[in-house]
Parts: sequence; structure tokens; C-alpha cells
Amino acid sequence: MKITVIGGGTGTTTVLEGLKNHRDLDISVIVGMMDDGGSNAVVRDEFGLLPLSDLRKSIIALSHEKEGDILRNLFIYRFSQGDGLKGHTLGNLLMIAMTDITGSEVEAIEMFKYLFNVTGNIVPVTLDKVRLVAEYSNGTKVVGEHLIDEPGEDLKIKKFYLDSKAKAYKGAVDTILNSEYIIIGPGDLYTTTLANIVVDGIPEALQESKAKIILIPNLMSKIGQTRDLTHMDMVKIMERYIGRKVDYILLNNGKIPEYAYKRYLEDGENLFKDDLDDTDSSRVIIRTDLVANSAIKREKGDTLVRSLVRHDSSKLGKSLYSIFRKGWKSTLHTFLSFYR
Amino acid sequence: MKITVIGGGTGTTTVLEGLKNHRDLDISVIVGMMDDGGSNAVVRDEFGLLPLSDLRKSIIALSHEKEGDILRNLFIYRFSQGDGLKGHTLGNLLMIAMTDITGSEVEAIEMFKYLFNVTGNIVPVTLDKVRLVAEYSNGTKVVGEHLIDEPGEDLKIKKFYLDSKAKAYKGAVDTILNSEYIIIGPGDLYTTTLANIVVDGIPEALQESKAKIILIPNLMSKIGQTRDLTHMDMVKIMERYIGRKVDYILLNNGKIPEYAYKRYLEDGENLFKDDLDDTDSSRVIIRTDLVANSAIKREKGDTLVRSLVRHDSSKLGKSLYSIFRKGWKSTLHTFLSFYR
Repeated sequence: MKITVIGGGTGTTTVLEGLKNHRDLDISVIVGMMDDGGSNAVVRDEFGLLPLSDLRKSIIALSHEKEGDILRNLFIYRFSQGDGLKGHTLGNLLMIAMTDITGSEVEAIEMFKYLFNVTGNIVPVTLDKVRLVAEYSNGTKVVGEHLIDEPGEDLKIKKFYLDSKAKAYKGAVDTILNSEYIIIGPGDLYTTTLANIVVDGIPEALQESKAKIILIPNLMSKIGQTRDLTHMDMVKIMERYIGRKVDYILLNNGKIPEYAYKRYLEDGENLFKDDLDDTDSSRVIIRTDLVANSAIKREKGDTLVRSLVRHDSSKLGKSLYSIFRKGWKSTLHTFLSFYR
Repeated sequence: MKITVIGGGTGTTTVLEGLKNHRDLDISVIVGMMDDGGSNAVVRDEFGLLPLSDLRKSIIALSHEKEGDILRNLFIYRFSQGDGLKGHTLGNLLMIAMTDITGSEVEAIEMFKYLFNVTGNIVPVTLDKVRLVAEYSNGTKVVGEHLIDEPGEDLKIKKFYLDSKAKAYKGAVDTILNSEYIIIGPGDLYTTTLANIVVDGIPEALQESKAKIILIPNLMSKIGQTRDLTHMDMVKIMERYIGRKVDYILLNNGKIPEYAYKRYLEDGENLFKDDLDDTDSSRVIIRTDLVANSAIKREKGDTLVRSLVRHDSSKLGKSLYSIFRKGWKSTLHTFLSFYR
């Protein structure tokens, strides 16, 4: 069964990790190429390459190397000292080198898939070098994923687009057209998820595809992107950019760990109001426990404070797989009834 | 048969490549840890680690990965752009990361031996962080391998030692004691070869070892180290530092390619005068064609101009192997005559 995950951030990683051990699934991931913070800035500005960190995360997420394996440890290693090296992830440097050796980002991905024993496809959404643009309710315009991701004040995004024309990578379009299920999210609504959808050719492919779309919203709101929105607000925004309705919405109803929840409240963030209409038969709404109970460990040399409320990869994997299985049963049912 | 190569530079690499496919040989290489130029300076000064580039070259030389293999290409890749990255070899960065992950240079070497399918041992001569010191005929004193290697004027080294006490790494001493043949050179007489011998415990081990010592001098002289010396001069210097006679001297009598030879002449360098005494039965002198006929290709991103007169790895390997075989035959002869 052909499954495509659209995103690129940590949420996407969680979905991939939850699904990758189902060997009957043919998994693809479409990754946004608009990241311009941290070491991606170096990659873009000094090497003229596409940002690589989300590709790198997807490679690790889909890898069948055992955790703790030598190569994996090297790939996720982050330099904590050294002029010009500090903050760089070794995996990013390996990808820069591989891109230079092979001559293209797409070839480099294939080499790493081989090294890391990856089954599945890792597909950049576009090969054009573009930046994200957000226009806010007060008229402010901000350019760059990094800046949109960490806004100074609490504003609402009114318009979201790319700073120049970007064409969808053919591989991404084909992947969408050939999918049976497409999973969008979890991930920051604008900077991770819609970042892919605003690429020319992606909404068109999603409209043309016969795939069912499964939307997985984030667990908690985020300043500058989704604060004060309801679930229905976010579904509406997503459907407006895609140009068609989503088929499934997968919501968490499990209890958020207290200690983590408090931190979000202090930051002014909250759970989304669930105003989704169960009587609307055009979308299937699934409410189940999807939340991770264990704390997120910080990586060595990591300068970011990790958010502590996360989806659980195996709970996500199980819920998604049961959607696929039901779909497969109903297909079989239709098929059998035809011969009855 | 246990063979040990002492050195660390390009000459050592050539010997290792010439011998590694003889699967009956148990090869070790003892590598000097005094390099302090280029990216080794960063490694030493910013990370507080031992210089890694000679270890890295030995790993590649003893690797049974096919040339062109993905990992090998990454390991030898040198960044040609990027603030703070330019000039760094990716292999060095991988070794820094691995040393940090495993906690020691020796452990890091073992991990890379596994990744690169290395048979043989790669042994640092010391784990102490020291620098080379050269005292010249005019009284000048220069500290640091890098500076000694590229002197401003043509001077003769009178005294050569380390800037502080360094104890031989136990693994290096054991390797020497257990060897049947020890190969010294080719390589710069002082900065590559004697750099190992000046470490406390190494001359003592060489004196105690029952191994035959094979000396392979460089093909051409080098300003500031061996200009105007004869072969006998160099043998005497080496034997003085080792504290015992060498058993074999392996000299090239093949023709140096004209175009390369001319470049050396222009720089004031020349072939060494062969004044070795064939009637002295204490040392076996072998004169044979050992020179590489093909030009040395420059690596991408390489800022150094490569010297063009080189030993040929397969010619060196064949000559060395025939010494080992004769030794084995004479041992067998003694053994058989005992039973006769």
C-alpha cells in the first residue's frame, strides 16, 4: 500500500518511525525545502545548496540501522566546539559533501538511503531555492522560515506564499498521484506543513490524486501560527490551500502530561478547541490517545529547548495502520461484492 | 608474518597499499602524532585532540573497501568552500566526532577499522600531545612539525627532539617487540620518520626487538631536512637515533620521470649520492626499480601542490615481499638443517 507523508519536521519523523516497521507499506515522505535557520543558513548561503536538515531527519527516521549503530551516531552528531564547526550537524556536512560528489541533492539522498538501509522514498517538494513569506493581520510582512517560526509578537498570518516561483519536483507530484493515503502533519501549520502546499503543482496533484488525505493537527497551539485557532479553523485553512476536502482528521484525546502542559500554559499556548462536526459525513473524525508520556531527552550539543508535548510514534503508527486496513477491507468488500 | 611500518605520511601509505593484499601478512602501522599544520592545528588547538590526518590516511590505505566506494569518497572529501569549513577534510571531522562519541582516539580508530573493513593495526606512536623541535647548524631553534617542514632557508638540522616528555603508547611498543620485519620510510627523514623514533621507549623497543629493520630512503632530497646528504649520511643519522644498525636498505635505481625530475632540480633538490658500502655485510643493500611512472593526480579541493616523484606501491610491495619470503626460507632452512 502506497503511503505518503507530507511535512519535514519532528512530527513527520514521528509518523515515519511509527509506520516504517510495517513492511507491507510503501512509504514516501515529501519534505519542505524552505528551512533557512541555523546550519541550513550556512548550507544555503555559503554552499548554494538546498536546506538539508529535514531530509537528514527523514533518512534517520526511515533507516533500518539499529539505534546506536556507528553511522547513525555520526550522522546525528552535533559539534559543540570549534570555530566555524560549532552548531553544525555532521550529517549536514556529510550531505553537503555527498551533494558535491554526486552533483545533486537527489543523488545524495539515494546514496544515503543505501548507506542507512532505508526502505521508502525521500522526496524534496521542490528543487528551487525559495523562501517562505508570511503576511500578518497588521500588515507586517516577514520573509524566511526561521523568522516566521519565531515571531516577536502574537500576530495572525493572513497570507502565506513563496518569495519567488517554485515548481514542484516531478518526483513529488508523481508520489502524490500514485498514493493511496496522504498524511499531512503533525507539524507547524504554516512553516512545516503549508510550506509544502504553497509550491506550484502540489495542490493540483493533491486535487487530482485519488488518495485519501489524513490530517493530523498539532497537539498544542503555537504563537504566531495557530494560537487561538480551533480545530475547525485549521481544517478550513488547510482545505483552502489544498483546494479539496481532507478525508480523515486524527485527533488526540489522551491526557497531556501535567508537567509539560504547564510549560505551554506559561508560554500562553493551549490545546485547540475541538469544534469539529461529527455529523458532517464528508470527513471522518477519529479521536484517540496519541500523546507520548515520556519526556523528550535533549541531544548532546543541542542548543534548542525541545518542546515536551509530542505525539507517540507507535500510537500514531497503530491508529494510521488501522485506517489503512479498514480502507483495504472496504476495497476488498467492494471487490468481492462485484463477484458475488 | 608480522610486519610493522613506521611513519605516517604519504610514503607510509604507499607501503601499506603495496602490502595490504598479501593476506598472509599481519600488518601494523605506527603513526607519528606530531602533525600541527592545516586542519590538524584546528584539531589540536580547538578540540584538544591528537592530530588525526595521518591516522586517517592509514585507515584509507589499509581499507579493503573498493576505491570509489561511497564511504571512502566521503572520508577523503575536502571542503573547498564555507566559512570555517574550507580546507577541512570530512574524514578529520568524522574522526573528531568519533573520538568525542567513543571517548578516545584509540577507540575511534577501532570503529573506523570496522566501518572501512580494515585488516591490520593502526597504532599511534604516543598519546601525549607534543611538538617537534629542530635545532639548526646556525643555532636557530624551530618548534612545530609544520614550520620545520617548510623552512625559510636551507639549514641543516643538528638536533631533533620533542618539546616535552612523551611516552611511547604501549600498543606501539608491543607491536615493535612482536614484529618480524619493521619498515622505516619512505617519508621525510625528520618530520615523518624520526618524529616516531624520538619518542621515549621507541628506540629501546627497536633495540630489544628481534625484528629485521628495512630502511626505505626517500627518492629525492628535501630542503631543510636532507639536501646535500648522501645515502650513507642518512643511514648513519637513522642508526644514531635508533641505537642499532638497520638490516636492509631498499634503494631505487629506476629512472625518475624526466618532467618531474626537472621540477625538483629547479627547486634545488636532487637524487642522493649512493655511497653505501656493498662490502659491509652487516647491512643488505637492495637496488631495484621502485619509482612510480605515472603522474600524481591532484585531489579536488586540495590546496597543496603534490610532489610528483613517488615510490610505486606495487613495486615496493613486491620488493618487500621478496625480502620477507627470503627471510622465511632461511628460517625454514635453519629449522630443517637442525633436523638433518
